[in-house]
Amino acid sequence: MLPYRAEKRRGAGGREHPLAECVPAGLECGIMRIVMELHGVSILGNRRGGQDGAAFHAINPETGEALTPKYHSASHAEVNEAAELAAETFASYSELGGKERAAFLRRVADGFDAHRDALAERAHLETGLPVAPRLLGEAARTAGQFRMFADLVEEGSWVQARIDPALPDRKPQPRADLRSMLRPIGPVAVFGASNFPLAFSVGGGDTASALAAGCPVVVKAHPAHPGTSEMAAQIIAGAVADSGLHPGVFSVLFDAGIEVGAALVRHARIRAVGFTGSLKAGRALMDIAAARPDPIPCFTEMSSGNPVFVLPGAFRQGAAALAANLFGSVTLGCGQMCTKPGIVLLPDAPDAAALTDELRALVEQSPAFTMLTAGIAKEYSRAARARAGQVTLVAESPHRDNPQAREPVIHAHAKLFSAEVEQLLEDPTLADEIFGPDTLLVTCASTHDFLRAAQALDGHLTATILGTEDDLEANRELIQVLEQKAGRLIFNGVPTGVEVAHAMIHGGPYPATSDARFTSVGSLAIFRFARPVCFQNFPQALLPEELQDANPLRIARLWDGKPEHVRR
Amino acid sequence: MLPYRAEKRRGAGGREHPLAECVPAGLECGIMRIVMELHGVSILGNRRGGQDGAAFHAINPETGEALTPKYHSASHAEVNEAAELAAETFASYSELGGKERAAFLRRVADGFDAHRDALAERAHLETGLPVAPRLLGEAARTAGQFRMFADLVEEGSWVQARIDPALPDRKPQPRADLRSMLRPIGPVAVFGASNFPLAFSVGGGDTASALAAGCPVVVKAHPAHPGTSEMAAQIIAGAVADSGLHPGVFSVLFDAGIEVGAALVRHARIRAVGFTGSLKAGRALMDIAAARPDPIPCFTEMSSGNPVFVLPGAFRQGAAALAANLFGSVTLGCGQMCTKPGIVLLPDAPDAAALTDELRALVEQSPAFTMLTAGIAKEYSRAARARAGQVTLVAESPHRDNPQAREPVIHAHAKLFSAEVEQLLEDPTLADEIFGPDTLLVTCASTHDFLRAAQALDGHLTATILGTEDDLEANRELIQVLEQKAGRLIFNGVPTGVEVAHAMIHGGPYPATSDARFTSVGSLAIFRFARPVCFQNFPQALLPEELQDANPLRIARLWDGKPEHVRR
Repeated sequence: MLPYRAEKRRGAGGREHPLAECVPAGLECGIMRIVMELHGVSILGNRRGGQDGAAFHAINPETGEALTPKYHSASHAEVNEAAELAAETFASYSELGGKERAAFLRRVADGFDAHRDALAERAHLETGLPVAPRLLGEAARTAGQFRMFADLVEEGSWVQARIDPALPDRKPQPRADLRSMLRPIGPVAVFGASNFPLAFSVGGGDTASALAAGCPVVVKAHPAHPGTSEMAAQIIAGAVADSGLHPGVFSVLFDAGIEVGAALVRHARIRAVGFTGSLKAGRALMDIAAARPDPIPCFTEMSSGNPVFVLPGAFRQGAAALAANLFGSVTLGCGQMCTKPGIVLLPDAPDAAALTDELRALVEQSPAFTMLTAGIAKEYSRAARARAGQVTLVAESPHRDNPQAREPVIHAHAKLFSAEVEQLLEDPTLADEIFGPDTLLVTCASTHDFLRAAQALDGHLTATILGTEDDLEANRELIQVLEQKAGRLIFNGVPTGVEVAHAMIHGGPYPATSDARFTSVGSLAIFRFARPVCFQNFPQALLPEELQDANPLRIARLWDGKPEHVRR
Repeated sequence: MLPYRAEKRRGAGGREHPLAECVPAGLECGIMRIVMELHGVSILGNRRGGQDGAAFHAINPETGEALTPKYHSASHAEVNEAAELAAETFASYSELGGKERAAFLRRVADGFDAHRDALAERAHLETGLPVAPRLLGEAARTAGQFRMFADLVEEGSWVQARIDPALPDRKPQPRADLRSMLRPIGPVAVFGASNFPLAFSVGGGDTASALAAGCPVVVKAHPAHPGTSEMAAQIIAGAVADSGLHPGVFSVLFDAGIEVGAALVRHARIRAVGFTGSLKAGRALMDIAAARPDPIPCFTEMSSGNPVFVLPGAFRQGAAALAANLFGSVTLGCGQMCTKPGIVLLPDAPDAAALTDELRALVEQSPAFTMLTAGIAKEYSRAARARAGQVTLVAESPHRDNPQAREPVIHAHAKLFSAEVEQLLEDPTLADEIFGPDTLLVTCASTHDFLRAAQALDGHLTATILGTEDDLEANRELIQVLEQKAGRLIFNGVPTGVEVAHAMIHGGPYPATSDARFTSVGSLAIFRFARPVCFQNFPQALLPEELQDANPLRIARLWDGKPEHVRR
C-alpha cells in the first residue's frame, strides 16, 4: 500500500490552491519521490465533495484486498454543482486564446510527467497492469496527448477558419461578408475507462481533447481505479489553479454505481459526452443523451471484434512467427484492449492448421491473466462459456488447482475458439467482442468466403489484412467492404497499439462507436467537442482573431473556399 | 394546369433510360419550352413504383383545387427496394473519382437549369410562392448548389487527407505509416422540406451534399409539392442514367403520411438522414434514428426564432427604414423561412415606440399571405391565437369579409405581438418559432435585460444584432452569449437570405438542429455524410489516390499535422 500525506504548496502562478498538494517527498516509487494525498471524495472545481454518498474501495485484483482510502459517491447536489461550475466557467475558458490554453495543457502534461511513477504504482495496485512498460508508458502517453493538443491549439489552424468576403457588386444580390470557425461546444462529461487508467481515464484523451477545444470537463471517474483517478484529477486541478483559470474548468465525480453518470448526461448544462467502455453502458448513455429534452452529441467507444483476415501469403513469415504476433496482440493488456483481435479469418489450408497448432501451444502455455475487475473477469467467463457452447473450444490456458500456485485472485484464462465460416454467416454475433484474452479462428474455404464473412460483419474499430501485396491486390473488393465496416484498416500489423497521431482514427460504425464520423484517439478527436459559428458582416475588431483579415495568428484558412496562400 | 406528355430520348451517355423523358417542346412557360410527364408514383432507381398505396393530390393553395396527377404512397416493399438499391450501388458509387462525380453533379445542375421555368411554374401551383423572383431564383440556387459541390469534389481537398509517415527508427517503438481521409457514410435518407420546393427538397442541399460525398440518396418527397418533386427526381434520375451510373444512386418515395419516412429511417441500409421541417417531425425522426438497433446520424433542421437585438444606434437609419427591413424579413416567403425573425428585442426608448408604430402600420396594410399548406395555415392560426393569449397582439393584417375580395384559399394574416422582457424570462417559449408571418417585439429596459433575454434563449439558427460598431463593442458579453445560442451571428442585416457559401453555417444548438456541429447549407454540409477511414501500412498502389505519396490529385493535405506545402 502506498503511504499518502498532504502538504500545501503554492502554485506556479503564486496562488494557493487546496488541491495540488503534491510535493517531492515521502514515497519511493522508482525514479522520483512523490507524495499525493488521497481524500476519497469528489472534486468540484476547487473544493472537495462530501462523504455522504455510498462508499466503495478499489480492489487490488492480484490480492483481492481493498485499497485505501474509502471513496464516496457524489450526491445529486454535487453532480449539479460540478455541471453548474463548468457552465459558469465556460464563458471565460472558451475565450482563452490558443497560446494560453496550450500553456495550461502543457502544465497538465508536466504534472503527469512529474507524477509518472506514483501514478503507475497506484494504477498497478488498482488494475493489476504492470508498472513497466505498460503503465509508465501509458503515463507518458497521457502527457503526450496533452502536449499534442497543446501544439494543435497553439498553432491554431484546427478551428477551420473560412472567409467568404463580401461581394457588394454581385448581381442579382450582393453577398454579405461571411466568416466561420469552430468554437467549443460547451461543458463536456467524460467517463473514465477501466482499461486505460491513465490514457483514457480522468486525464485521458477525451479530457485532453475537450479541454483543448475550450470546453470545461466534468469527469465521472471509473470506480475500479479511484485512487489513480484522484491523482490525475489533482494534477489537472492543480494546473487549472496554477494557470489562474476558473476552477470550474475541471471537476471529478466518484460513484460506485451508475446514477452519477446518468445524472451527468441528463444535466442541462452538459453539452457533449465522451465515453469509452462496454456496449451496454455506452448504449445506455447514448439513449439518455438522445432522450433529453435537448439531445446532445454523445461519443461512445464501445465494442469491437477487430477482425483479422489472414490471406495465403501471410504464411511466408512462418506459422510460429504469425502465431506469436497474433497471440501477443490477443493477450496484450490481458486481452482488455479495445482493439484486441477477437476474430481471425483463415484460409482452409495446411498453413492455417499449423498456425492453429502454434496458437494452441501458446494458449496452453499461458499463465492466467490478472483482470481489471471481478465484474470483467466474471463477464469474460460467462461470455467465453457461452461461446464454447456455440463453437469449438480449441484450447485454454491451464487452471492451477494447486493452491500453492500463486494465481491472481481476479483472473482469466486465455481461450482459443474455432468455427467454420458458415457458422459465422448463420450467427454474425460470433464476431462480437468478448472482453478478455480469447480469440476465434474462422476457416474460410475461398476468397469468396472471406468476402461473405466481411459483408456479415457489424461495425468495428479496426480490420486487419495479413498477406503479401499481391494478396491485397487480389482482394480489392475485400478492402472495399472492410472500409465500410471499420474506422482503421491495417495491412500486415496488429490492431492493438493505437498511435496518438494526426491521421489516427479510433472510431468506426456502430457498435464500435456511437458515431463513425469521429475518433477518440488522435488530434481529430477534438472535433467531437467543437461546433462551427458563422459571423456575418462583423466589424474586424469584433471578430475573433482567427477570422480577422490580417490573420494575426498566421493560421491556415480557406478564402472563398481556397487555401488563403493560394488565393491571395 | 400544366400539360405534361412523355417522350423517350437517349441520354448523353447513349443509354436509353425510361425516366428522363424531358424534351424541349409543348409547354410555353416563360423562357424555355419544356415538357415533363408526371406519373404520380415513386421512382425506384430506374423503375417506377406501383399505384397501390394511398392516393393524394397536391393542392393549389391559392385556389384550393387539387392538382393532377394523383400521387400514390410508396409501399413498404418499395421503401425496402429503394434502400436495398442504394446499398447495392454504394460500392461502385462511393468509388467514383471526384472528377466523375463532379461531372454527374454538373449534369444534374444543367438539368435544373434546363427545366427552370417548368419547375418554377409547377412549384408555384403547388406552393403559392411567386414564380419570379422567388422560384426562378430558387431553381438557380438549386443548380448552383450542385455546381458548388461539383467544384468541391472535383478539387478534392474536402476529404481532409492526413498522412503521418512511418517512423521506423522511433524509440521505444516505431510508428507505422498512417493515412486517413473522409469516405462516404453510406446510403442517405433525405426528407424534402415544404418551404423550399426546389432548394431544400428532392434536389436540394441535402441531396446535393450527400451525392457529392459519394452517398446514394433515397428521398422521401414532401407531399405538398409532389409534382415539383417528381420533376426534380426525373432530372436527377436522368443525370444518373446519362452518367452511366448504377440507377440505385437515386430514388424518390412518395407518401401522403409519415409511414414511409419512418420506415426509411428505420431501414438497416440507410446510414444517415438529412431533414428540414418542423420540430415535431424532426424530433420524431431523431428518436427513430436513435432507437435503431444501430443508431445512425440524423441531421434535422427544425425550429428557430432567430432573435434580433436592436441596440440604440440601430435607430440612426430611422424607424421607417428599420421597420421596412424587419417587416420584409418577417414576411419573406410569407413568413415561412427557417430564418424568419420571430422575436425582436428592443430598448425601452421613444425610438422603439416609433419602430413599433411603423411596424404596426406595415402589418395593418399587409394583404393576406398564401401559405404552403392548409396544415401550416391552421397551425399558424392556432399558435398565433395561443400567443395572443400570452402577450399583447399589437396589430394584424385585415381579414377581408367581403367575398368579392380575392384572397387565397389557404392564407394567413401577418401579426405583430409585444411583450415585456420579464414575460420572456418567465416563459422562454415565447422565443419559440411560429411558422408564419408574425413577430414578437420584446422591450428590454437595459443592456442587462438584453443579456438576460439572450441567456434565456434556446438554440437558434441565427441571432442578429442591429446597431453601430460602438453598440457592438459595448455589448461584447451579449455576443459571447449569442455565440452559444446560434450557428450564425449577423451584424446589421436580416437573418433571412441564407447564402450558399463555404463559410455559411445553417445550423445551431437544439431545437434549431439535432446537432450543432453541422450545417445543412454551404459546402460544410458535406461533412454530415462522410466519415474518416485510416489506412495503416498500406502499399502505395492500394491506397486511394488522395493518400498516395505522389499526391496525383494535387489536393491540400496534412503531413505529420502540418500543411504539406509547408512541411515538404
